[in-house]
Amino acid sequence: MNCEYSKTSKRIFRSEIRELLKYTRKPGIISFGGGLPDASLFPVREIADITAKVLEQKGYLALQYGPTAGEPEMLEALLGHMAEFGDEATDKEICVTSSSQQGLDLLTLLFLDEDMPVVMELPSYIGGVQVFRRSGAEMIGVPMDSEGMELDHLERTLDRLGKAGGKPRFIYAIPDFQNPSGVTMTLERRKRLIEIAQSWDIPLVEDSPYRELSFTGEVLPSLWTLSGGKGVIMLKTFSKVLFPGMRMGWIIADEHCIDKIVMLKQSVDLCTPSFTQLILAEYIKRGKMRESIGKAIDCYRSKLDAMLAALEKHMPGEIEWSRPTGGMFIWLTLPERIDTKEIFNTAIEHNVAYVIGHPFHCDGSGANTLRLNYSFPAIEQIDTGIERLAAAIKEVL
Amino acid sequence: MNCEYSKTSKRIFRSEIRELLKYTRKPGIISFGGGLPDASLFPVREIADITAKVLEQKGYLALQYGPTAGEPEMLEALLGHMAEFGDEATDKEICVTSSSQQGLDLLTLLFLDEDMPVVMELPSYIGGVQVFRRSGAEMIGVPMDSEGMELDHLERTLDRLGKAGGKPRFIYAIPDFQNPSGVTMTLERRKRLIEIAQSWDIPLVEDSPYRELSFTGEVLPSLWTLSGGKGVIMLKTFSKVLFPGMRMGWIIADEHCIDKIVMLKQSVDLCTPSFTQLILAEYIKRGKMRESIGKAIDCYRSKLDAMLAALEKHMPGEIEWSRPTGGMFIWLTLPERIDTKEIFNTAIEHNVAYVIGHPFHCDGSGANTLRLNYSFPAIEQIDTGIERLAAAIKEVL
Repeated sequence: MNCEYSKTSKRIFRSEIRELLKYTRKPGIISFGGGLPDASLFPVREIADITAKVLEQKGYLALQYGPTAGEPEMLEALLGHMAEFGDEATDKEICVTSSSQQGLDLLTLLFLDEDMPVVMELPSYIGGVQVFRRSGAEMIGVPMDSEGMELDHLERTLDRLGKAGGKPRFIYAIPDFQNPSGVTMTLERRKRLIEIAQSWDIPLVEDSPYRELSFTGEVLPSLWTLSGGKGVIMLKTFSKVLFPGMRMGWIIADEHCIDKIVMLKQSVDLCTPSFTQLILAEYIKRGKMRESIGKAIDCYRSKLDAMLAALEKHMPGEIEWSRPTGGMFIWLTLPERIDTKEIFNTAIEHNVAYVIGHPFHCDGSGANTLRLNYSFPAIEQIDTGIERLAAAIKEVL
Repeated sequence: MNCEYSKTSKRIFRSEIRELLKYTRKPGIISFGGGLPDASLFPVREIADITAKVLEQKGYLALQYGPTAGEPEMLEALLGHMAEFGDEATDKEICVTSSSQQGLDLLTLLFLDEDMPVVMELPSYIGGVQVFRRSGAEMIGVPMDSEGMELDHLERTLDRLGKAGGKPRFIYAIPDFQNPSGVTMTLERRKRLIEIAQSWDIPLVEDSPYRELSFTGEVLPSLWTLSGGKGVIMLKTFSKVLFPGMRMGWIIADEHCIDKIVMLKQSVDLCTPSFTQLILAEYIKRGKMRESIGKAIDCYRSKLDAMLAALEKHMPGEIEWSRPTGGMFIWLTLPERIDTKEIFNTAIEHNVAYVIGHPFHCDGSGANTLRLNYSFPAIEQIDTGIERLAAAIKEVL
């Protein structure tokens, strides 16, 4: 049909990463691609038990339309969950979402316009890059080092944009165990980032899917908490700490902003399923979330240790990698002359897969980087997989 | 905070209807507002049984990320369900959504641009009006009569737009038991609408939430089927025929269009919950959907009959109403001088609520109309509620 599509639709492309991940279905391959949690951690029996109870006691509520902001008992449970990690908010400062990707979608609708700037880390979460690109906003990357976003660079960027008359609509950061880099922003940087954002009156979007997955016990104060909620919007999800199959997340922001988000959400999907909200609310109420997170931490810490040891053992000297203390990812930097997309086929021939680093960069850089996921592969596969990857890299070096 | 929001956000308003519906919480009120299914129809025990089985047999799949277009067994089940109502499609022509509101959101992203025209019925579904408005598109209404959209008027509209150089991005219609009017488009109109749309190369969006709820046994061929799938996009949901609490819907379109929709959906929420997809797939596979629909039809037919009888009995001569043969709504037209928003308070004083008709009109008309829902109130309340409404109307006439 000879119909006309929107400008928006022309900014959406087939994901390069998804195309490459198709090769990982080859039998015998060890995949460090994707960002899936380990399904053996999923509390299947507990969820079955809770679902039966929810349907028995509140079936008619669970299967009916619910409030757009979320079921009251879910909101209460989520606020309690956050408080355990040091983050306090009220029931006027929260809206349930279909995982944090919907949070990003709603913030894109709320803030971004064609050609207007938005600032994000280099590299950053690819789902953020995709949805921000959809709006036509000008994405501006700020490099990271091992302490997080480079703030001198951020200040220079804001000065430059300010002089051109266009301050960014928001600054997007993933302070805890960042995807894809594995880096955690230091406390000092967090405080200075808030100062900078507040002095410019720019909202900070704190994407926080991995916050609960600290392997050292240390959890730094969030931007939300450090700022006293002023000018910070926090995105949360259970996809990484529990499981993604219910697509459950939430947004924390001041009341005025939540009001706008709720109105937008009505246009997007009316409401999030009451059914799964009531199940997860009960799961949290029973104290099971704490248990689940404890198990995930133990599992992923062992896998991380195995991967770091394997990298140490097998990788040639020219390769650098991050040393995360939580989350799901290690970030590899190869010599500048190597394009990780070009060596992807060699890796597949060696029966190992990763995710190329370039699509995580909103400025098109990062061709010599790649991301390794350690949460999904079996721990027994990790050493062999890294050995194969090292062999593939050595072949092209 | 002195931050700048998007143009999009400025086009989203608090819903007038939602604000008025708050008054319906007054004790003793009989509400014909809202569009909720009757919760006593929800197959709570069946769902509990199926959920236990799904978690036992496929728990790890149910709680993991799934494909953006949907779980293969859900797609198969949905295609089978549609085929029972005469609509055939392939597994390349379908994408699961968070109910049909997400379908409308995705089509807005895919087709609509600021100031570009989109055509819809007068009146039309309010969730459509809201999300189309969000895009800044110019919404153009075409009046309806008791046979559906007035096609001479549509042709004149297309001529006028065509001369101005802007053909509509799509034509939005709800052919079966329309919300809010209760009207079903005749077969003749359906055929002519398709001819018109095809001759202009304009996509037809067929929103079809009530199709299964025919009280006479007659189900007219859908636009999708009549057109052989050419140029028609169909939106489906289980919110009205089964229950809304899992937010489950789907889109049918040609493969090229579905490809684009899937890419957009990745930016919107990555995927719909596998958990609820697998539950509903099993529900359909067991033949339970057919049973549920049969029960809903029996229940709503009785309620419709009760409401039509009550209207006949109580309403003054100057009031007109639609006589639907399915769905959930009756549409009332009052004398032009009456504003149904102004008499809303009188109705509340008489302990009865409805939904004002004006927000269903993209052109701001319809002040003298109102919508009555008969699916949610108890059948015993209907006569009394209509008697009260008639008393309120007589008071202002």
